[in-house]
Amino acid sequence: MSDIVEEFNDYRAKMNDKILADNNKIIKRIFNLDTNAFQEGVLDKKTKELLGLVASAVLRCDDCVKYHLESSYNEGLSKEEISEALGIATLVGGTIVIPHLRRAHEYWEALEQHHSD
Amino acid sequence: MSDIVEEFNDYRAKMNDKILADNNKIIKRIFNLDTNAFQEGVLDKKTKELLGLVASAVLRCDDCVKYHLESSYNEGLSKEEISEALGIATLVGGTIVIPHLRRAHEYWEALEQHHSD
Amino acid sequence: MSDIVEEFNDYRAKMNDKILADNNKIIKRIFNLDTNAFQEGVLDKKTKELLGLVASAVLRCDDCVKYHLESSYNEGLSKEEISEALGIATLVGGTIVIPHLRRAHEYWEALEQHHSD
Amino acid sequence: MSDIVEEFNDYRAKMNDKILADNNKIIKRIFNLDTNAFQEGVLDKKTKELLGLVASAVLRCDDCVKYHLESSYNEGLSKEEISEALGIATLVGGTIVIPHLRRAHEYWEALEQHHSD
Amino acid sequence: MSDIVEEFNDYRAKMNDKILADNNKIIKRIFNLDTNAFQEGVLDKKTKELLGLVASAVLRCDDCVKYHLESSYNEGLSKEEISEALGIATLVGGTIVIPHLRRAHEYWEALEQHHSD
Amino acid sequence: MSDIVEEFNDYRAKMNDKILADNNKIIKRIFNLDTNAFQEGVLDKKTKELLGLVASAVLRCDDCVKYHLESSYNEGLSKEEISEALGIATLVGGTIVIPHLRRAHEYWEALEQHHSD
Repeated sequence: MSDIVEEFNDYRAKMNDKILADNNKIIKRIFNLDTNAFQEGVLDKKTKELLGLVASAVLRCDDCVKYHLESSYNEGLSKEEISEALGIATLVGGTIVIPHLRRAHEYWEALEQHHSD
Repeated sequence: MSDIVEEFNDYRAKMNDKILADNNKIIKRIFNLDTNAFQEGVLDKKTKELLGLVASAVLRCDDCVKYHLESSYNEGLSKEEISEALGIATLVGGTIVIPHLRRAHEYWEALEQHHSD
Repeated sequence: MSDIVEEFNDYRAKMNDKILADNNKIIKRIFNLDTNAFQEGVLDKKTKELLGLVASAVLRCDDCVKYHLESSYNEGLSKEEISEALGIATLVGGTIVIPHLRRAHEYWEALEQHHSD
Repeated sequence: MSDIVEEFNDYRAKMNDKILADNNKIIKRIFNLDTNAFQEGVLDKKTKELLGLVASAVLRCDDCVKYHLESSYNEGLSKEEISEALGIATLVGGTIVIPHLRRAHEYWEALEQHHSD
Repeated sequence: MSDIVEEFNDYRAKMNDKILADNNKIIKRIFNLDTNAFQEGVLDKKTKELLGLVASAVLRCDDCVKYHLESSYNEGLSKEEISEALGIATLVGGTIVIPHLRRAHEYWEALEQHHSD
Repeated sequence: MSDIVEEFNDYRAKMNDKILADNNKIIKRIFNLDTNAFQEGVLDKKTKELLGLVASAVLRCDDCVKYHLESSYNEGLSKEEISEALGIATLVGGTIVIPHLRRAHEYWEALEQHHSD
């Protein structure tokens, strides 16, 4: 079975490196902010990951959903917490979010599989 | 030739089952509403399918477009009616809808092929 | 009571005239298409108005919703038909459509009032 | 000074009543779900309000932002927590979120004023 | 006649000051980037302003359109150049952009008036 | 190595032909406008291509980005100009634009490869 987690992360890392090598200041700083914004603050990391996940889901960005699913997994968030957050996303964002739910579910399964190997 | 209709429906059914098995009340009720909303009412089923199709197209959700194309096909809507509805979607939603028109056209052809086999 | 129907139509007409006076070919042709797209075709005018309404609602464009509510009113569509179409829009587009439902409801009332005067 | 909190809530309540009086099943159930989705679950109410706030902000729905700001205020969330959540929304959703930050800030001030009266 | 240019700028400046006073690092840096991104680079300022304008228009952010209209005006861009850029925005983004065209046209007139006083 | 440029252009051309063969007036005229809008005017072709590219990127339409990358390449725009334009798109549209940056970067590389063969 092809590992969609590895495939996603490899492509993401490879292309991010190339983008950063272009040395565009605006883009580099946005990448930087993206790392900082999800650090512990007044809100803890878990809450922030859920915020990133829901923002990604309602804006229907599959790659962003995958990225936050992985960070959420690593932070120890449970499937039930993810599911409740995605339920809010589907209600606020409408049934057009449902295809992204399907792919999110598949990716979460792949994360569990990937980390149990 | 690989059947994109079957492929789409199989994946959709498999993942929907898994999502529903998670037993998230909000998501289950939204799935439920999605079935009810397109039943005969003051507006007939054909009109409702066209509304679902146009909403899906302007929001640029390929999977939602596919789903409503299949229901539209099953309700007996003609290619000309679909095309006129998608014309309105392209005008209201702009040229960014065009790539979705291409995939919609391909899927409609696959539906015709699938049902003529 | 200030008439929000007249106010909307006056502003719309005044500014459209100014935009068209700029003589930008692309914009003029899009305005033109907008008139043609909602003419009787394979689909009747009522259905097309509902398609325009739902597209406007899920894309959350209040002025577009107002415009299609007025044309729908003039085509003789009933409040029940409008309500059913907007129900589909809310399901597909999510609860972020609800504030637009409120303003749509208010505008429909104003249309009834306006035409009963 | 006119109270924008009261004004928003009055209009919202009045129009919601009218919409519900139309007795459209789909819309009524969505209103219902909207109440249920933000109840205590695996995630607590505060977290859910922040999820609703961020979803509303990235989808750029001022009325939805206002609604979740008020519930957040009532749940005891601090201005710093709100600010951190909206920071994530602005990063994920881009600078087009900034005008909504301005109105959110104004509304939060009005909530503080309103509740201190 | 009330000056919509002054009104917009006053509110914008006042609320931006309050937001920056909250001292949220992510938001402060995004505000900062927003200033840097439109400075002369490989692309000149005029081109960048047009890019900011078109991005704002297709994303249908009136306040962002106003902001870029004013910077465009100050950079010496002509009404014809603005109109051509907004024509592309309307084609790509669809007829839902038209209400924003109306408000953009009104704001450009106000800018001309404001600077001729 | 499979040529993603050729693959994209072949599919695009094949499906556009089929769509145009359907003879839907609205869609045909929008296709037509799409060609006209990017012709030399008060703004030169390069600037217009960048406007089309940024509009496509913030609206997150990969196929539209690909199309404008190819026209930009053919007009002689440099990678640095493209990068600066996409930097603005990422700032205005937020980090959800980043996955599209990755695919844009890959496509630009493919264009360089394709034209150097």
